[in-house]
Amino acid sequence: MQHSHSHKVDNRNELSLPYASDFHVHLRQDTLMRMVVPRILEGGVSLCYVMPNLKPPIKTTEQALFYKAQLEKLAPSVTFLMSLYLSPDLTPKEIRHAKRHGIVGVKSYPRGVTTNSDSGIESYTAYYPVFKAMEKEGMILNLHGELPSDHDKDICVLNAEEKFLVHLKQIHADFPNLKIVLEHATTKAAVDMVKSLGDTVGCTITVHHLQLVVDDWAGQSHNFCKPVAKYPHDRQALREVVAEGHSRFFLGTDSAPHPAHLKECAHACAGVFTTPLAIPYLVTILESFGALDKLQGFACEFGKRFYGVEEKKHTHEGGKERKIKLVRETWAVPDSFIYGHDEDEEGESGVVVPFWAGKVLTWKIER
Amino acid sequence: MQHSHSHKVDNRNELSLPYASDFHVHLRQDTLMRMVVPRILEGGVSLCYVMPNLKPPIKTTEQALFYKAQLEKLAPSVTFLMSLYLSPDLTPKEIRHAKRHGIVGVKSYPRGVTTNSDSGIESYTAYYPVFKAMEKEGMILNLHGELPSDHDKDICVLNAEEKFLVHLKQIHADFPNLKIVLEHATTKAAVDMVKSLGDTVGCTITVHHLQLVVDDWAGQSHNFCKPVAKYPHDRQALREVVAEGHSRFFLGTDSAPHPAHLKECAHACAGVFTTPLAIPYLVTILESFGALDKLQGFACEFGKRFYGVEEKKHTHEGGKERKIKLVRETWAVPDSFIYGHDEDEEGESGVVVPFWAGKVLTWKIER
Repeated sequence: MQHSHSHKVDNRNELSLPYASDFHVHLRQDTLMRMVVPRILEGGVSLCYVMPNLKPPIKTTEQALFYKAQLEKLAPSVTFLMSLYLSPDLTPKEIRHAKRHGIVGVKSYPRGVTTNSDSGIESYTAYYPVFKAMEKEGMILNLHGELPSDHDKDICVLNAEEKFLVHLKQIHADFPNLKIVLEHATTKAAVDMVKSLGDTVGCTITVHHLQLVVDDWAGQSHNFCKPVAKYPHDRQALREVVAEGHSRFFLGTDSAPHPAHLKECAHACAGVFTTPLAIPYLVTILESFGALDKLQGFACEFGKRFYGVEEKKHTHEGGKERKIKLVRETWAVPDSFIYGHDEDEEGESGVVVPFWAGKVLTWKIER
Repeated sequence: MQHSHSHKVDNRNELSLPYASDFHVHLRQDTLMRMVVPRILEGGVSLCYVMPNLKPPIKTTEQALFYKAQLEKLAPSVTFLMSLYLSPDLTPKEIRHAKRHGIVGVKSYPRGVTTNSDSGIESYTAYYPVFKAMEKEGMILNLHGELPSDHDKDICVLNAEEKFLVHLKQIHADFPNLKIVLEHATTKAAVDMVKSLGDTVGCTITVHHLQLVVDDWAGQSHNFCKPVAKYPHDRQALREVVAEGHSRFFLGTDSAPHPAHLKECAHACAGVFTTPLAIPYLVTILESFGALDKLQGFACEFGKRFYGVEEKKHTHEGGKERKIKLVRETWAVPDSFIYGHDEDEEGESGVVVPFWAGKVLTWKIER
């Protein structure tokens, strides 16, 4: 069933490609934000679609623009696309206001399923007036595609995504011109559903879900994220849709840093941190299943095309597109990234353990 | 699907029952053993079937008897039934020797699936001469019923038990008079399979698998054990077979203490610690799904009947059976149990966090 032993061998030792786009990333606040944001370019990414689940969630245009200014100050050459958090506070009027100020989309979290989602939604039809305005204005709807667990209905983290898919199908049927992204797909069922729907439905896939299965987060908190990684056949479906070069499936890392002491504890936070090495991880993993030839489409092109967005002009120099150069080299992922340790810095300090800490990557970005 | 809201209400405020039997327990070594073993009676248990996965594993009669003597010294009134670890070192001759010295069974671990299982087996037919001798001598075969993960074959911790069941069926078909126990069942598939087989096939169910589902160990290391807890419908199947009073399904806690620092870390050890409160947990949980009337059969009778074993005479006093008295009382599970802290004690020290630490139980054993 798996094709990992029959993939094409790539004999190149260097790769050149445009900076990538990450269409789903958590950049946090305060000291953690100040550690993460400068590392976006280091990871090979120059465009970020920024998640709004801050404390408190970003529910207004003004909050989003304030946050965007903070991010741009930390990484002036990165393009930040902003989103709002779907909640009863969001009105069609606010959608039109947001659109005029460059906000790109709206993120929907089912209540309680992941980090800072306590304000998440419980029913979609209540938001139909908002969706209608979004469709008209050309704003994106980003769906965290999981139902909340309900053990009486046999819903748990393993089938929460599959059982959500009827909602995706219904919203798409009711708003065929609304661009919808099913975020961080983890199952064969999700891949099949997105493929079966129209051109206005896209799907992000993370770096870590191309690698992990349930065994990897059983007792291993740094691999625990929501949605959880599923069965090997689910991972295989994700790999296959990337290897096929399907243009509605594109990179969204869902990189979500948490302090190490909130991972290595009795109740671990959900999230995997990939930002500083996003593209080296991705290249290493794509090569492992023979999909290196699909890297540029998946990481650099398909997402921007689906969103219909352009990057800032200053990511180009002298009229020439700025590129990243990857070289074949074995090197170890750092054990941790320190944040908040500057003497004159206010706020919390600690370390974040990245994905695959201590493991060997086979590609490195040449500085 | 779930019946938790329609169960029988039990208005009793006191329960009296014989001390229970735990047909699957890890009692450890050294300081940890010296903390755990005196707590067996506290938990309402007076008979233990002891797992052999020590460091090194118990592979000979002499090792088992040496370990048994250590346990009996710590808890003289508890009956310890001993087992050997199935490995290529085990011969039909050793089986006969073991039987003569009161060893009760042989535990089979697939290689690498749980704590200290690196010496586990890879194929069953190689052990058929041993099984033949066990069948003749009347020894029990205890199966850790999981296949090792193999992602190319889509085998992972979620389906490892279900995919193992063909082996159970085959061994039973080849040795119909060999008593086999499928240990710590976690799936509807396992319950259905055991029910479909003959009277020589039994099955243990843990306390924690009557309560946990996958959501409970996602990021929560103290609920992480092997086999992992599965879907809500699997838990429901375990609850139903207990509520039905099926006499081939009986208590085996698989209580498996680990130091807290080996749980609250990047790679948590697998195991849930229930020994000190085994029966209070069980009574609280059975009552939650209306199966309190099946407590005595499940915890005290069915296992001994299946094994055909008697307890030591000194668990009775003055000709009267010693009983435990449970009273309805809400009280909190301790946050931890200290081990190895006596000044004159050699060996490691630390704490073990029990199952449901800090949560409220509704029944207590009256001392």
